[in-house]
This record gives sequence, C-alpha cells and structure tokens, in this order.
Amino acid sequence: MDLQAVRDIRKLVIDLCRQHNGGHGGSAIGMAPMAVALWKHVMRYNPMNPDWFDRDRFVLSNGHAAVLLYAMLHISGHPHMSMDELRLYASAKPVDRATGKWKEALCLGHPEIHVSGVEVTTGPLGQGISNAVGLAIASRNLAATFNRPGHEVIGSHIYCVTGDGCLQEGVACEALAVAGNLGLDNLTLIYDNNRVTCDGPLDWTALEDTNAKIKALGWHVLDVPDGDGDLAVSNIVSALAEAKTLKERPTFINVRTTIGYGTLHAGTAKAHHSSFTAEDAAKFAPSGESATHTISSDTKKYFASLVDKGSALEEKWNGVLKTYSASYPELATILDQRMQGTVDVRAAGLLESMEVPDSPMATRQFNGVLFNRLITSVPSMIAGGADMWNSTNMSDAAQQELIFDRSRPSGRLVRYGIREHAMAAISNGIAAYRRGCFLPVTATFFMFYLYAAPGVRMGALSDLRVIHIATHDSIGEGQNGPTHQPVELDSLYRAMPNLQYIRPADPEEVIGAWAAALEVETTPSIISLAREPLLYGLSGTNRQKVKRGGYVLSEAQMDVKALVTLVSCGSDLQFAAEAARRLNDEGIPTRLVSMPCIELFEKQPQDYQGEVLSASKHIVSVESYVSTVWARFCDASVAMDSFGYSGSSTENYARFGMDSDGVVRKVKALIEHDNPGGKIGVSRRWRLLK
Amino acid sequence: MDLQAVRDIRKLVIDLCRQHNGGHGGSAIGMAPMAVALWKHVMRYNPMNPDWFDRDRFVLSNGHAAVLLYAMLHISGHPHMSMDELRLYASAKPVDRATGKWKEALCLGHPEIHVSGVEVTTGPLGQGISNAVGLAIASRNLAATFNRPGHEVIGSHIYCVTGDGCLQEGVACEALAVAGNLGLDNLTLIYDNNRVTCDGPLDWTALEDTNAKIKALGWHVLDVPDGDGDLAVSNIVSALAEAKTLKERPTFINVRTTIGYGTLHAGTAKAHHSSFTAEDAAKFAPSGESATHTISSDTKKYFASLVDKGSALEEKWNGVLKTYSASYPELATILDQRMQGTVDVRAAGLLESMEVPDSPMATRQFNGVLFNRLITSVPSMIAGGADMWNSTNMSDAAQQELIFDRSRPSGRLVRYGIREHAMAAISNGIAAYRRGCFLPVTATFFMFYLYAAPGVRMGALSDLRVIHIATHDSIGEGQNGPTHQPVELDSLYRAMPNLQYIRPADPEEVIGAWAAALEVETTPSIISLAREPLLYGLSGTNRQKVKRGGYVLSEAQMDVKALVTLVSCGSDLQFAAEAARRLNDEGIPTRLVSMPCIELFEKQPQDYQGEVLSASKHIVSVESYVSTVWARFCDASVAMDSFGYSGSSTENYARFGMDSDGVVRKVKALIEHDNPGGKIGVSRRWRLLK
Repeated sequence: MDLQAVRDIRKLVIDLCRQHNGGHGGSAIGMAPMAVALWKHVMRYNPMNPDWFDRDRFVLSNGHAAVLLYAMLHISGHPHMSMDELRLYASAKPVDRATGKWKEALCLGHPEIHVSGVEVTTGPLGQGISNAVGLAIASRNLAATFNRPGHEVIGSHIYCVTGDGCLQEGVACEALAVAGNLGLDNLTLIYDNNRVTCDGPLDWTALEDTNAKIKALGWHVLDVPDGDGDLAVSNIVSALAEAKTLKERPTFINVRTTIGYGTLHAGTAKAHHSSFTAEDAAKFAPSGESATHTISSDTKKYFASLVDKGSALEEKWNGVLKTYSASYPELATILDQRMQGTVDVRAAGLLESMEVPDSPMATRQFNGVLFNRLITSVPSMIAGGADMWNSTNMSDAAQQELIFDRSRPSGRLVRYGIREHAMAAISNGIAAYRRGCFLPVTATFFMFYLYAAPGVRMGALSDLRVIHIATHDSIGEGQNGPTHQPVELDSLYRAMPNLQYIRPADPEEVIGAWAAALEVETTPSIISLAREPLLYGLSGTNRQKVKRGGYVLSEAQMDVKALVTLVSCGSDLQFAAEAARRLNDEGIPTRLVSMPCIELFEKQPQDYQGEVLSASKHIVSVESYVSTVWARFCDASVAMDSFGYSGSSTENYARFGMDSDGVVRKVKALIEHDNPGGKIGVSRRWRLLK
Repeated sequence: MDLQAVRDIRKLVIDLCRQHNGGHGGSAIGMAPMAVALWKHVMRYNPMNPDWFDRDRFVLSNGHAAVLLYAMLHISGHPHMSMDELRLYASAKPVDRATGKWKEALCLGHPEIHVSGVEVTTGPLGQGISNAVGLAIASRNLAATFNRPGHEVIGSHIYCVTGDGCLQEGVACEALAVAGNLGLDNLTLIYDNNRVTCDGPLDWTALEDTNAKIKALGWHVLDVPDGDGDLAVSNIVSALAEAKTLKERPTFINVRTTIGYGTLHAGTAKAHHSSFTAEDAAKFAPSGESATHTISSDTKKYFASLVDKGSALEEKWNGVLKTYSASYPELATILDQRMQGTVDVRAAGLLESMEVPDSPMATRQFNGVLFNRLITSVPSMIAGGADMWNSTNMSDAAQQELIFDRSRPSGRLVRYGIREHAMAAISNGIAAYRRGCFLPVTATFFMFYLYAAPGVRMGALSDLRVIHIATHDSIGEGQNGPTHQPVELDSLYRAMPNLQYIRPADPEEVIGAWAAALEVETTPSIISLAREPLLYGLSGTNRQKVKRGGYVLSEAQMDVKALVTLVSCGSDLQFAAEAARRLNDEGIPTRLVSMPCIELFEKQPQDYQGEVLSASKHIVSVESYVSTVWARFCDASVAMDSFGYSGSSTENYARFGMDSDGVVRKVKALIEHDNPGGKIGVSRRWRLLK
C-alpha cells in the first residue's frame, strides 16, 4: 500500500510539473516516501481541522518542492485542497470577470502561510529549518508551562524536511546550533540527501561530512541508506519512531534519496527544476492509463482512514483538555487565552501608566527598564538577544530565572548567541505556532539587523508580529566606527511592506513605540533606539501621538506663519529641537515635527498629514541617515551621504554637520539661497498613484 | 624573550584600553602569545614595506580586538604606527584649528582597510574569516597561474584569527565550508578559544564540538591546550609550523586561552569590553614602574631584527622575480600588470564593439553572453555564483575548463554553493589582495543579495570593486512568488554609500552597465537584471549614456512642450515606453527618460540633471519597486506598495498595475485630478544640504 501511495504521489507531482512546464519536481519525487511515512504513519494531525492546536507541525524548508506539500494535503484529505485547486498550480490566474478581482490560488510557487495547511512560508533557503526550531521552542515552552503530571495538553512534535541547499546556508547552521544548544528533542529534521543542487552534483560545492557536522552541533544523527526503494517508507518510519525515543537532543535523519527517482534525468541537476516528459509520467501511471491528476482508489482508501484517526486524536485531546480544566482551572484559562491569542491586553495598562524619568536618558536604557516590566507582565512574550543582551540594556539580574534553556524550558528569555539571522527566523517560527499565542521579541544592534534582514522580511511577508529591538542605531553609536553605524538600513526597512520601523526620540516616545508595535497583530515592528544619552531633554513628546506616526511638537514662536518646518526623529530630534529654538531666536519662524514612524504617518488621513506638514514654506528633514523616503515630504534634508566614523558620539554629530550647529547653518543657507517663487504644499508633491 | 614580549603587549593593551576607558582588551590580552608567535616567528612580511606584494596576510576576524593589531604593528616596526598614533586611539579627534579639517587617526575602533598594515576592515563578525578565504583563493590562484617549477613568485600564506563570536555567525560556517571544499591549504585559522562572549560564558550559547564541526567541513584541526602560560608562544609556533606542512586542506588551530589573562576579571565576560584597573596595569609593568605606553628595551631589541629579516625577505623575492622575468618574460609582464592593477583596459574595447541582438532579449540572457566574452578576455576577472549559475544565465559548457577547484586552482569560476553572504564577503577578500589585481564578480537572484547584503556593504565601506550580477530582479520573476521578488531591496542599495546600483533596460544598456561598473576602481556595483524576456523592443537606448545615470530616451511627440515625463529603468522601462507612446497618441505630450543608475545621475552637473528632468509639468517614475529615492525627482510614482505574487510575469505586471495599461491609467488620473497651479521644476525640489 505504501508503495502504491508513493507511486501515486510521484505521478501526481509529475502531472503538476508538466502542467507548470517547470516547477521543482525532482526533489518532490525523491521525497515521496518521506511524505508517506510522515502523513500516513507518523504525524499527529486532523485532516479536517488543519488548525487543531496540538497537531504536529510540518515545515518544508526546501520550499521549492511545494508540489509535494500540495499533493500530501490533497491526499490526506485537507478540506480546501481539492484536485481542482491543484490544477490551478502555476496556471493563469486572470481577472475574474464576474467579480472584477484577480483570481487567487492556494497552490503557489512556494508554500505560503496564508494557505491553510501550510505552517510557514518557505523558499529562501535555510529559513524553514530556523522556523522549525522556533516552532519547537514554542511547543517546548508551552509544554513546560502548561503540562502537568498525567495531563499532557501540549505534545506537538515538529518535523522539518531539508534539502542540500538549506544546509549550505549559514542561517541553517546557526539554527541547528541553537536547537542543539537548547536540546530541543521535540524536533526532527529529515534530510533529503539527494546530493544534487540547482547547478549540478553536490560534490561541486560540498565535500563536507554532514552527519559529523550536525552531530558536532549537538544533534542525534540517524541514517536511512535507502530512501528510494521498496523499503523506503518503512525504513523512514523506523527512523522517525526511533527519533521520538531519543531524548536531550534534536534528531537529524539523513535519508539517501535520488532526485527525480525513476525519471529520465534521475540523479542529475536536470531533475531539479526541469519539466518531465510524457514517458516519465507513463512510468508511474497504472499500465495503459493516460489519465492525469488521479489518485488510485487503493491509495485513496489507504489515506481515507486518516480522517477518522485525526478526528479521534483531536477528540481524545479535547478530553485531556477537559480533565485538565477541571484539575487546573486557572492554568486552563490562561492556556485558552493563549490559544485565542488574547492575553496581550495587560501590556496596554502598563504602557499607559508607565512613568518617564525626569532627566534625559538614552532610549536604549529606558527601553531596557520598560522591557523588563513588560516581560514580567506579558506571559506570551518570549524574547532573546544575539549576545548583546547587556549592550542593548535588556538584561536584568533579577530575570535570570526567566532564561529559557534545556533545564528551564518554561523560561522566556532565549540566548540565541551571535546568530542574528537565525534569531529573526526562529522568532518567526515561534510567532507562527499560533497567531497571538506568543509575542516574540529580538534584540541586537540596528546594524546587525542587516544580517537578520532576510528573517525580518519573511516575518513581514508572513504577517507575523515580532518586535525587533534595534539599538546603537546611528553615527551616535560612536567609537565602534562605520562598521557598526547604520546610515542606509532604515531605507530598507522603511521601504519594506508590512513592517513598522519606529524610531522614538525619548522615553515618552519609546512607550508609544511599544504601544504601536503591540497594536498591530499581523505586522512586525522594529523599535530603533540610540546608544547615547540624550544631550537635551525634549518637551511635548507624547506617547499617544506616536501611533499617528508624526505630530507637531512645537509651532513657530512669535505667533507668525512658519518659514521652516523641521521634521526629525530618534536621537536626531534633540538636535532639530535645539536648532528650531535657535532659529526662532534668530527670527526665522520654525516649526518642529516629531516623526517616529513614517509608515504610520502615511496611513493617516490627508487632512491630518497636511496639518502636520504644510504650514510652512520649507520642510526640512533632520536625520543622520542617507535620506531617501523623506523626499516624499520634504524639500530638503539635513542628512548623511557617506558612511560614519570612529569618533565619539558628539564628535560624530559635529563631524557630519548633524548637530544643532550643523542644522542651523544648513537651514540658513537653504533660506538665503532659496528662489522664493512658486513652491506649494510639500506633502502633496509626491504620491503613490493608485 | 617571548614571555617579556607577551607581557609588554599585554601591558600596552591595558594602557590603550585605560586611555579608551573601554575597548575590547580582554581578547587582545588573551591573544598576545598568538600575536608574538605570528609576528615574531612565523609570518613573512617586511615591516618597512607593509604593501610588499608577497607578504603573508593577517586578518583579525574578531576586529573588536583591534588594539592587539595596533600594538603589533607598532612593535614590529610599521613606519606609521608610532606610539603617538596609538595614543590617539579612542581619543578626541576635534577639528584641527590650523587646517580647519577634522583630525583623522589610524587606530580606529575597528581595523579599517584604509590604514596601512590593515589587510581588511573587520568588525561585523564572521566576515573576516570569509575575507581570509578570499585572500587564500587569490593567493592560490595567482600561484597556480604564475608560479613555475623553481620559480615560486607567489607564496603568500593567509593567517586569520577568530574568536567565539565569528564562529557562531552563519557566514563563517559558509566560508569554512567553501575553504574546505576548495582545499585551501594556504590558509590557517587560529581560534582564540576563550569560551567567553559579550554576554557571558560560551556554554550559554554553544555546547557544540567546534573541532568536530570544522573537521567535518574539510579542515585539518590542531589543538593547543595551553595558549596562556609560559610555553604558549612556542606551543603556538609549533602548531603553526605543523599547519604549514599539512596539505590538501586548510588548518584550524584551536588555542585554549583566557580572556583578560592575569587581570581582575580574567575568564569572565567583564573582561570582554570593560576597562582595566590600575592594579591590572601594575601586574604587567616592570616592578616599581608606573610609566604607560612603553615597550621594554628587551622586546624592542627582540623585534628590531624583524626589520632586517623583512628587508632580506623582500630582497630575496625581488631576486626570484628577476630570474622569473628572464625565464618567463611574458608571464612576468602580465604579473607585473596584475600587481599594478592595470589590465582591465582590454574590457573597454570589447564593450565598445559588442553587438546587440536584433530582437528583444531578457537582460539576464544577454548579460550571460556578454559575461562569457568578458571572462575570457579579462584575466583578472574571477567570478562565481551561489548555485544559480544556470539560472543567472552565466554558465557556458565551453567554460568548464575555467572552473576553480582543488584540482584546477588556476581556474577563475568559483562554485560558492548556496552561500550568498560568504560569496560576497569572500569576493571582498579576493579584491583586497591587491587593488586591481583581481576583478571579482558574484551572481545570484537579486532577492538573495539580501542574504549577501552585509558582505556587499563591507565592500562598499572598504572601497573594494566587486561586481554583483543580480538577476530575477522584480515581480517579473513570476512563478516563484513574493519570497523571490524584491520590491524594497533597491531602496537599501540605492541608499548605500559608495555603491552603484545599475538597472539596465535592454542589452544595449547592459553593456553600458558593465562599462560603468568597470570604470570605478574603488566602488562596487550591482547590475540588476530581469529574468523575463522583454515584451517590447526599446529604441534610443545608448550604452555610453548609461554612465550619466539617466538620459532622455524620447521627447514628446507633436513638437509641443511635454506635460509628463516618465522616468523608468530595467524591465519597467518597456512598459513606460509603451505608455509614453500611447499617451502621446492620446494627445498627452509625454517624454521618456531612462534612468539606469540614480547614483550616477546625481553626480552629473545640475544643468544636465535639469535638462533631463525639468522640461515637463509632471515627472512620474515607473518602477515595480516600493518608491523611496525617486521622490527626490518626481512628483508621482507608478510603483509597488506591497509584496509581489506568484503569477506569471505578464500577469504580475498587470495585477499590480505596472504594465502599460496601468501606467496610462494612473498617469491620466494624475492629470485629471491635478491642481494646475504652482508647480515648479521638480529636480530642484529636494536636495541634500551641505
């Protein structure tokens, strides 16, 4: 029966790739036995309720083999994944004439989290493994927090499949090290060892001993020398069963397979992404049949039993939950809230009542104080740093008891090590366990969010709320020099869809930044903070107004129409404020706008945007970054046009003309040389055409 | 004598850190024996000529321990690295009143390549190891190309020191795998195994078996169990000597050390970056002496001999070169050109005479043709892909003989594997071997240059010319979906200082893009290319004009003043061109500007910029990215404001209103709703204030 199922899956994969005239069928064909082992024999899930909370999670880290996932969701009885849906894979999706809307599909080029049955979006290699590590942390943490002797309400095991490509990516190595270090024995990584990559044989690019490498990283390693032939499924099932008995470490199962097994180009790079021939299809078809997109009735029957099995599993779990609720009513209530994703509300009160210090304080420092309050009062928060826990000011001796490690899996502070990319991608996995169940937080220097950027992007693309705390966010960082001083990174994050880049200027706005980050359920945020203490205090900053993205901090003095509006944020706002004061004193009527989040400001009504920005002739941005997106609002910028320098914070602001002296000088030069004619309300100069 | 030298270095490090009131002295103190072993006993270099071509190269991958490098350059007799320079480390660098310029220094927070004696800029962890791999590839390739039996003109060995942090970064794992795969036995990596990171003990974040991991990656592994005590230097010298005898693989030397050895916080995270006490200083001072910044006369004498030794080495090498020139005059001439960095000129002729195809062709496809010509005619070009050699269209069966691997080290095509970040960082190392000696080229999908971004940035910061070929650069990529479709990545690269992001529209401009990339000697470039074939041919594109960044492709028809200027580039230009034609036909006078490189355009005289942009009322950019930097020039943008979609290329352009239908519709709406009053020449709306 397993053999027939493998055969049917391979045939379906070939049909789907032929309909695509491409796709990545070779790996999918090679992995068919693994898939049967997992979906039919091993994984705990309920086909009719893909969202059952305690299901085992499956991650296809080699996301380009998406067709396999679609085939398995179909065969195992996923309610939406009909053969008609599969036929839409890579087909034309024009405008639907009836609705006027563009046709959507479930079977996309790579698996996307928005599709029911897909746990995480995969494709960018190595990140799926990291997501799986995150899912395993989530499951481990929930189990440690909620399970009680005889009441195992959380038992989700995480399965991840990887190809050769994922394992070459640095982020995978980072994530494997984290998993080994944390001893995540609820994680099984299955290696589709087909020894072929996109360009050619694996030997071209990797002579490494993969088993030894992964064992060294703290994993159990099992081998399945034959993952192709008649015994493949039972070989893999045995290994998976053994993996579940192995404790203290995650398990890596090295399954030797053949890419495009049985097809013309089997075992070669041509099988990686080329289409298959009619002969390839014929080989796997029942003799004489030319029908495509069919599953044999034997296989259908074989998998049909999973529906009952899955219902029974969920029903049994409901029973466990019921007894649990009776024995541990308070825990059960909290678990229920976590499952519903509704416990973050208590943070709001804290943010409203939080007091700010009387004297100027570095935003990273105040953020540390605030974070330490938040982590205590928000039980879904799970935070971690990339070995910059001290420098980001997020450590607190009292919280050592909160550390998450192999001996304390109920902890909520994860030591990711110097592994920024994995930190972000693992956090996405934690967030993906169940929306709202966890609130992952990451922390390191802003510059190192360039290392983490592919992970941050996948969070934004996947609508996963993760809060990234990015300190040392400018030339004000000082002594470390240009390697550590971002001048262009904001441009990436301010352009990235579905991401809030928030750069608060002082403690009051730090509170507002957290409120804005907590308010959006499907959007990650970066809270960008300064290393250096503020030189000047700011008056008029307002935590509530941060949510509007930008707001007027002060109108021009002398009750006259302003000539200049300075728009600024973060540690630069203090210099803009000081410059505004001086310009007003010198008779140049100047307004001051705080704009901690451009993304949020652009969501405000046009009227509000106009009020904030259009009351002066000149609008000048003041920020120690290369100015890109500011040009939408401003006619001039006080900005960087080079990398930074290894000097002290104050020296750097002066060196680059970014301190109040620099701002005053540059604004006066702008006014003096200005052609007075013809300028109009600047906020309307640029617009995105719809 | 070694002991005294180690002691003096430790004392100097303490003095420098005390003058800084910080710094990262702990590792530097722990590594002092390694430094003595390398600088006094092992490395081939000439202190008085730090640029001697055949010197051994040293990379401090844990760049935060910069003080050690400065101390060693001083002690070994580097002509510029006086004790006065060392005293400037982390000191105030104000404006020099005499010159009015900001004071510069050599001893910066992290080592920077602009400083003589520093081979590469390091700081962002893991990249130094990758740079070292690049230097080793460069040396290996030169040796294989130029050495002849009995004439070893190239013998540079690469030494790299790494801490725990570098080894945790994914990029290091990638680079180690590449080095193992290529069998670079001219590379020795020395591990300062102090088992402490910034936050605490290494056990918090890494329980791995590092030796086993690195052995699995194809390295020889040696152990030095005592890297601290009286025998440390000789232990390390022995291991380094053994490493030079080991063949076929690079060697990893695991040296057990103590961070901040001998000081108050020895062995703890406090020694990582805190300052030292007066007692710490006293421990290493000659008894009774309180002087700081001194080197004992014994140590001075001990190292003074290096100056003669170094001169002798270089003189001997000059002799070898002389005999070589006599025996192999042609090779010697080419080697000389490579050393001078002057051989790329022959590319210019090829680019001038290169013909373009008659029918529309995808830019990636034409680039492949062009690249295959270039690599043959430019012997300094060394190119490699991240397992996308086929997809980027850069493979050519005829060039298999050009592959660089362990059996063919004279080859110039490197298979980096699916390791984008290492690919970029290794390429920086190749470029840093000697400016102009190599022209490294990398290639993968544009989206994966987000993985590589930290490496690309370090190249820009370090003035290293590397050309990055980025294909599949938009939603036109099609089926792979939003995970593979950049919409915001251009914003990062267009904001990055000293980087040319060039997005040619057709084969003619691809030629111009290469010319522009080859013309700048200290600036990396990204050439951004489309996967999909052009739907429409473009007329008027001009390879010479690409160097100006932007140029007029067509004026409005009907000899009237234009109402609209469309500015576009890359695969979007074809839709802009078609839209311009249609708008003109409909009586809306429309100009068309091709702007393949904003960075280059902004370097043009204001007059030229005005000519190109200011002849119409509306300036509208057309590009299927989130529009940020365009706002400097345009009053409106046809652009993306979301991630892409998994559809066909043409469907995607239509779905997001980015095809010519979309452009025409949006521009007409802009005109109809426009308030006609008051707009001025748009190119002057935004400026960077100096």
